[in-house]
Amino acid sequence: MNGPIDLNADLGEGFGRWHLTDDDALLAYVTSANVACGFHAGDPATMRRVCEGAAAHGVRVGAQVSYRDLAGFGRRAMDVPAPELAAEVAYQIGALDIFARAAGIRVSYVKPHGALYHRAAQDPEQAAAVVAGVRLAGTPLPLLGLTGSALHAAAEDAGLPTVAEAFADRGYRPDGTLVPRGEPGAVLTEPGEVLKRAVGLARDGRLTAADGKPLRLRARSLCLHGDTPGAADLARRVREELAAAGVTVRAFS
Amino acid sequence: MNGPIDLNADLGEGFGRWHLTDDDALLAYVTSANVACGFHAGDPATMRRVCEGAAAHGVRVGAQVSYRDLAGFGRRAMDVPAPELAAEVAYQIGALDIFARAAGIRVSYVKPHGALYHRAAQDPEQAAAVVAGVRLAGTPLPLLGLTGSALHAAAEDAGLPTVAEAFADRGYRPDGTLVPRGEPGAVLTEPGEVLKRAVGLARDGRLTAADGKPLRLRARSLCLHGDTPGAADLARRVREELAAAGVTVRAFS
Amino acid sequence: MNGPIDLNADLGEGFGRWHLTDDDALLAYVTSANVACGFHAGDPATMRRVCEGAAAHGVRVGAQVSYRDLAGFGRRAMDVPAPELAAEVAYQIGALDIFARAAGIRVSYVKPHGALYHRAAQDPEQAAAVVAGVRLAGTPLPLLGLTGSALHAAAEDAGLPTVAEAFADRGYRPDGTLVPRGEPGAVLTEPGEVLKRAVGLARDGRLTAADGKPLRLRARSLCLHGDTPGAADLARRVREELAAAGVTVRAFS
Amino acid sequence: MNGPIDLNADLGEGFGRWHLTDDDALLAYVTSANVACGFHAGDPATMRRVCEGAAAHGVRVGAQVSYRDLAGFGRRAMDVPAPELAAEVAYQIGALDIFARAAGIRVSYVKPHGALYHRAAQDPEQAAAVVAGVRLAGTPLPLLGLTGSALHAAAEDAGLPTVAEAFADRGYRPDGTLVPRGEPGAVLTEPGEVLKRAVGLARDGRLTAADGKPLRLRARSLCLHGDTPGAADLARRVREELAAAGVTVRAFS
Repeated sequence: MNGPIDLNADLGEGFGRWHLTDDDALLAYVTSANVACGFHAGDPATMRRVCEGAAAHGVRVGAQVSYRDLAGFGRRAMDVPAPELAAEVAYQIGALDIFARAAGIRVSYVKPHGALYHRAAQDPEQAAAVVAGVRLAGTPLPLLGLTGSALHAAAEDAGLPTVAEAFADRGYRPDGTLVPRGEPGAVLTEPGEVLKRAVGLARDGRLTAADGKPLRLRARSLCLHGDTPGAADLARRVREELAAAGVTVRAFS
Repeated sequence: MNGPIDLNADLGEGFGRWHLTDDDALLAYVTSANVACGFHAGDPATMRRVCEGAAAHGVRVGAQVSYRDLAGFGRRAMDVPAPELAAEVAYQIGALDIFARAAGIRVSYVKPHGALYHRAAQDPEQAAAVVAGVRLAGTPLPLLGLTGSALHAAAEDAGLPTVAEAFADRGYRPDGTLVPRGEPGAVLTEPGEVLKRAVGLARDGRLTAADGKPLRLRARSLCLHGDTPGAADLARRVREELAAAGVTVRAFS
Repeated sequence: MNGPIDLNADLGEGFGRWHLTDDDALLAYVTSANVACGFHAGDPATMRRVCEGAAAHGVRVGAQVSYRDLAGFGRRAMDVPAPELAAEVAYQIGALDIFARAAGIRVSYVKPHGALYHRAAQDPEQAAAVVAGVRLAGTPLPLLGLTGSALHAAAEDAGLPTVAEAFADRGYRPDGTLVPRGEPGAVLTEPGEVLKRAVGLARDGRLTAADGKPLRLRARSLCLHGDTPGAADLARRVREELAAAGVTVRAFS
Repeated sequence: MNGPIDLNADLGEGFGRWHLTDDDALLAYVTSANVACGFHAGDPATMRRVCEGAAAHGVRVGAQVSYRDLAGFGRRAMDVPAPELAAEVAYQIGALDIFARAAGIRVSYVKPHGALYHRAAQDPEQAAAVVAGVRLAGTPLPLLGLTGSALHAAAEDAGLPTVAEAFADRGYRPDGTLVPRGEPGAVLTEPGEVLKRAVGLARDGRLTAADGKPLRLRARSLCLHGDTPGAADLARRVREELAAAGVTVRAFS
């Protein structure tokens, strides 16, 4: 059996007039909040409010760093030269940390967002640039990401901690990688399935891959999506099911 | 006679491919660098480079906070609601401070840029919002600005230090306020005049107002403009003239 | 009794991943769509889609021009120099017109958005700049706005048509101006009240002002808000009530 | 011997306070102006001014469409989904055309900028999206680009004209493709070399490839870079040398 599991979700993904994530509701259920830092979403007032909410709920705050792409919500991969990317990552961490500090907490991990998440999982140069940005920011923050990713390899090379995460609502291929979006089975939409997957992943890492065969993944954190309708309700039910299954929910340390 | 004088200039006012200020050259002559933080200018890589240069030259770094207005270079006054403005100010300070820390220094003062400078000098609400942003950022940083400005009043109300500055290349009205841009005598363009004004202001605060009468201003810092042709050369000559006049040039403490 | 009434609403006010207005539903009820052009909202793909939908519904398309302010949704007044503002207005009209043409229609009027709407109603210089932008765009498009506004005065000076609009869900002062947001009675939230006001305004311009006294306004277009919950349902009910009251709903010509 | 040659250069590549290209000087020498449309550079007031200048000089105006990337000056390749990219291209063409029309001319060709130029030369999907954007904009505008590029193939498939261009200041590989930036010989910096290459390309398409062997390229337009020091002076000398060599300089039709 696994140890305690962390629940993370993307929060603060609005921008000005636009709202996306039900931040207040989700803060009641997650243990780690990936806060948008202004590059794909996240205006300063929202960042402040989410940090205050996280502090009030005892939720850990992480910097959800992204490409600079409001129009594409950070979902369009970009060939950003490494020194620029490193500086952009540090900038975002610094901006968020001010609001975390103001709320009495600190940014305590980093998770790339969207296209940067996927690119940094596979591209050693961008992975190294993200890690360089974290190091530039001065604190050896853990990188939340996929086991075996280029990001985790780069973090290990640089002496930064890594935290493995898995997705409660995504399909997995037999080799443990995600079924790409757009392919059948990429996203689990039936709440019952998501709950079952969440409990399996949290309890002992067991799940059923897209080919119907059993698979085992080790993950210290479980990612819940915050931008879908009913996200907060699903998060609540995940917590309930985990409690019922005897799994401790706790932020990674 | 005044005590030592500080020389400040706006630096890092490029953005990506665009360059404006001759940062490396100016760092050799100023004692305080007002660094653009990304809202009117200042991409992350430039912010990093300017902070490293400032650290190397022993130059103090301040956050040149601005309205979010790249297209207008922060020169278009905006009615930003106070909570938004405070959060935007804190965001910019946090982002810059990451690069300052990475260079072994810290953001050690705040100076609003452009339209925000002028608005916060006159509008108590925006002045208070800027000060609230500085307080949110956690360190009681001094506000660099005009004596008698709403910004300084708000800073004093909040218990933050203030530093008075004067402009070597601007015309002054008999009451000690600046001749508005667009009016005759607003800007001194003749280098000899600028040098004379700089020395007068630094030595004992004496200058000649636009009406030809003597005026006395007390300023702890002298602002040099960095975005004009020959700015670095003029800065060098100001330092030489101040040295020749026996004025000590030193960052305010 | 008034002639036919036009129903206008702001559409396409999302940006990339963010959605705000229920464009498809509203297109079934309005006769004029004020389409966001990318400065306060409105990414190109959304602009295209709204123009196609408007063409399919026989709805007139207008350029909802704004200050360049995604973070503030165009709600923060800005001191934009007149030549810049005129060029920004023309730019937005041109961008939208491409999508209108592609859908077989044309941009057929202009309505400033948010803070620019209010500023251009009162500030002759910005009003003239908006009108100059419309003229620069080459077609003598009508300006949708408030009777007696600086915008309408500037349009008349320039020989451009004006169309007066009134708001079904806003309170009016005895002098016919809007009760400012933030004051009691500024916004009507009870659907029955909105419906009654809509019918009164459309039928003969009669309504009850905030002081309880009768008021008469002449408006050729009625503005419905598209960014509130239930906006499409309210629009449907307004059309039904207008039909029941014998008012013809038709785009202004 | 080739027929007449067109000279094109990127113009209007400033943004607000920042200036890059010496637009007025270059307009005296080029026959086609690739005007930045706001996505990588090019504020509306600059677009207007360049169009007016082009009209005054009898210079043809083309839309220099780009990824939405001010911070990276459009030099960072982006994975923009095809429908978004097509709409972004149409948006830019529409915005520029308003200023062209106001100046009495029209946008008469399209040339992708920076990373989009290179991506659309090699990636059939993005090439098709750019072409779809041009078609959406309604006029069968020619696409200026590299012979054999995916962009030209997509344009031909869609029935749009193509215009081949060559670079006076770039090195070519034996197969007629450009020596990639970053490799030795990618950019010719010696003015004499550039002039010689320009004349050879314009007269009969003959040049010396990077391996020292002769190469022949057919190009209807010659690209001069506008963002280098001395760009206008070099353009002037190119025109003089072409005149001396008996080459007619004329915009492509």
